[in-house]
Amino acid sequence: MPQSYRVAILGATGAVGTELLTLLAERSFPLSGLKLLASAKSAGQRLPFQDEALPIEAVHDQAFDDVDIVLASAGGSVSKAWATKIVEAGAVMIDNSSAFRMDPTVPLVVPEVNPEAAAAHQGIIANPNCTTILMNVAVYPLHQVQPVRRIVAASYQSSSGAGARAMEELKNQAQAILNGQAPRPEIFPHPIAFNVFPHNSALNDLGYCEEEMKMVNETRKIFGVPDLRITATCVRVPVLRAHSEAVNLDFDAPFDVEQAREILGQAPGVKLVEDWKTNHFPMPIEASGQDAVLVGRIRQDISNPTGLELWLSGDQIRKGAALNAVQIAELLVQQNLIRSAKQPVSVQA
Amino acid sequence: MPQSYRVAILGATGAVGTELLTLLAERSFPLSGLKLLASAKSAGQRLPFQDEALPIEAVHDQAFDDVDIVLASAGGSVSKAWATKIVEAGAVMIDNSSAFRMDPTVPLVVPEVNPEAAAAHQGIIANPNCTTILMNVAVYPLHQVQPVRRIVAASYQSSSGAGARAMEELKNQAQAILNGQAPRPEIFPHPIAFNVFPHNSALNDLGYCEEEMKMVNETRKIFGVPDLRITATCVRVPVLRAHSEAVNLDFDAPFDVEQAREILGQAPGVKLVEDWKTNHFPMPIEASGQDAVLVGRIRQDISNPTGLELWLSGDQIRKGAALNAVQIAELLVQQNLIRSAKQPVSVQA
Repeated sequence: MPQSYRVAILGATGAVGTELLTLLAERSFPLSGLKLLASAKSAGQRLPFQDEALPIEAVHDQAFDDVDIVLASAGGSVSKAWATKIVEAGAVMIDNSSAFRMDPTVPLVVPEVNPEAAAAHQGIIANPNCTTILMNVAVYPLHQVQPVRRIVAASYQSSSGAGARAMEELKNQAQAILNGQAPRPEIFPHPIAFNVFPHNSALNDLGYCEEEMKMVNETRKIFGVPDLRITATCVRVPVLRAHSEAVNLDFDAPFDVEQAREILGQAPGVKLVEDWKTNHFPMPIEASGQDAVLVGRIRQDISNPTGLELWLSGDQIRKGAALNAVQIAELLVQQNLIRSAKQPVSVQA
Repeated sequence: MPQSYRVAILGATGAVGTELLTLLAERSFPLSGLKLLASAKSAGQRLPFQDEALPIEAVHDQAFDDVDIVLASAGGSVSKAWATKIVEAGAVMIDNSSAFRMDPTVPLVVPEVNPEAAAAHQGIIANPNCTTILMNVAVYPLHQVQPVRRIVAASYQSSSGAGARAMEELKNQAQAILNGQAPRPEIFPHPIAFNVFPHNSALNDLGYCEEEMKMVNETRKIFGVPDLRITATCVRVPVLRAHSEAVNLDFDAPFDVEQAREILGQAPGVKLVEDWKTNHFPMPIEASGQDAVLVGRIRQDISNPTGLELWLSGDQIRKGAALNAVQIAELLVQQNLIRSAKQPVSVQA
C-alpha cells in the first residue's frame, strides 16, 4: 500500500490556496488528511474538496503537529511567522512566498529544472516567483543543450498576479470606462483597465523593481549560474489571468532554431503553440487553466548570430504558483524526502 | 506676408485623417486652402475644420492640380495609385502608408531625428511606422552622443493601431466578456479584450512579422546605419490608444545613466516621466492625445555594462502618424522645400 500524507494549506482562502485544493484533487495526491488553515477571520468557513466541505481552522501553535507537508501561500510575513513552528513540528514547508527564496539554506525548486535541489532541504523549500517559473520552464531545456549567456525579458503580467481583488478591479474599471466613467484605482496605483504600466513593486537603487529582481536572482539560483546575465522589464497588462513574456536569449554559440523547436516540443511542462500560417501563438486566454507553459514564435534573433527570441504564456496561478508547489510535494513523495514520513503515517482518525 | 500653402488630405475620414485636421488647426499651419479627399462613398459628407464644415471630395485625376502638399493616409494601395498624379501635379506627397518607406529615392523622415533627409525628396516623403517613430524619438538623442550598437525592443501596442473599428472591437469584446458572453473576433484574428497576442501582421521566413521588420528596416534607414542590429517582438495589448515599448539598448561603450536622463530630459519630442517615489512612469492613458513621446525608467542594464533600459509610451495616431506628417510639412515650409511654392501661391478664390 502506498504511503499517504497529511497536508495543510496555509492561506487556503486565497487565489493560490483554492487552486491548491483543486490540484490536490485533480492529481490524486496521496492524502491521508487535508487541513485548511487561514487567518482567524476565515475560521469556521468551509471549502469544497472532492465530495466534502472542509472546515477552515485559524492557524495556531499546534496546527502543524500532525502534518507532513505544509503548502504555504498566505504571503511572506505569515510564512516567516510560522516557519519555525512548521519545521519544529517535523513537517516540510513548501512556501509560495518570497520570504525564503534567496536563503542559501533553502532550495528554490522548479521540478522540471532543478528537482535534485529539493534533497538538500532542511524543512523549507521555496516555490519561485510566477514570472520566473514560467521563463525557467521554457529556457532551461535550451540552456541544458547550450548554455545561455544573457537573457533580456519583457513581461505582460495579468491582474490576477496581484490577487483576486486586483482582478475584480480590472473588471470594475473596464465597466466604468465602457460606461463613460473614470476608473478608480484601489489595489493598483494606476488605472489598469485599457492601460499598461511598469510593475508597481518596490524599486531598488538601480531602478529595477522587485518583480524584475526576482526574475534575475531566482533564475540564477535555480539554474545554478550565480553570474548569469539577466535583465527584465516587468509590466502589468489588462489581462485577467496568465502572464506572457517576450524572451530574448543569447547563447555561447549559435543555436539552430529548428533544434530549439524540437527541444521545446519535447520539454517537460512546455506545450509548443506555433501555427505560423494562422499567426497563432501563445496567448493568456489559452494558457489560463492549463498546466503547461505555452511557448512559441521561436525565432533566430536577426540582431545576434548567437541569439534566439521566444514568446510564452503561462497560468501564473497554476504553474506559476499552485501547480509548481504541488509538483514539489509530489517530488518529495517520490524521493522519500518527507521528514516525518520516515515514521509510518496512519490515516487520519 | 508669409507664404501659405494649399493642402489636401487624402483619406480624410480615417483616424489619422481626422487627427491631421485637428493638428493643422492646432498648429496654425499656413493654409491657403484645405481639400479633403476620400473614396467616393464618403464624398458629399462634411468634416469640421475651425469654424467651417469642409466638404469631402472623391479623389479624381485632377484633384491634385491646385495643391502644394498632400497628406496621404488612406493606406498603401491608395498611396501607390495616386503617387504619380500627385508628383506630376507638382505637389509633395507626405505618405503615411508603408508603400514608399523603403524606396531608396524616398526620404523617410522623423523631424527630430533626420530632418536633413527631407531636402532630397523627389515629390514623395514617407512617414515612418508608428512604433518606429516612437522608438526613434527616444533612442536617437542617445545614439547621437554615443552610437547604439544593438536594440532589443518589445512593444505593447494599442488596438487603435489597427484602426477605429479595432478600437470598437476591443470595447465590444470587453463588454461581452463582462456580461459573461464570448468575445467575437472580427478585425483581429484573436480576442483582444483581456488578452494579448503577437502582432498579427504577415510573418516572413525568419518568423518576424511585418511590424517588427518595419522597426528594424525603418530605424536603420532613419538613423542612416544600414547594419544597425535590431530585434523586436511586437504585441497587441487591450489598450484603446497609444503604444508602449520596453527598449533595451547596447552602446559602443558604457552610457552613464544620469547623462542619458539629462539628454532625454532636453530631447526634442520627448517628455521625461519618471517619478521613482510613486512608481509613476509612462503609461498609454497619459500619452494619449499628447505630442511628446513619454520616456522613463531609464536604467543601467544590470546584464550589460554598456547597456541601458528604457520604457516609453506615445500616441501612435498623433506622434506615431498625423503629428509626424504635419511636422514634415512644417519642415518643408521652413526649408522652402515645397516644389510649387517656388511660384507665388495666391489664396484660394
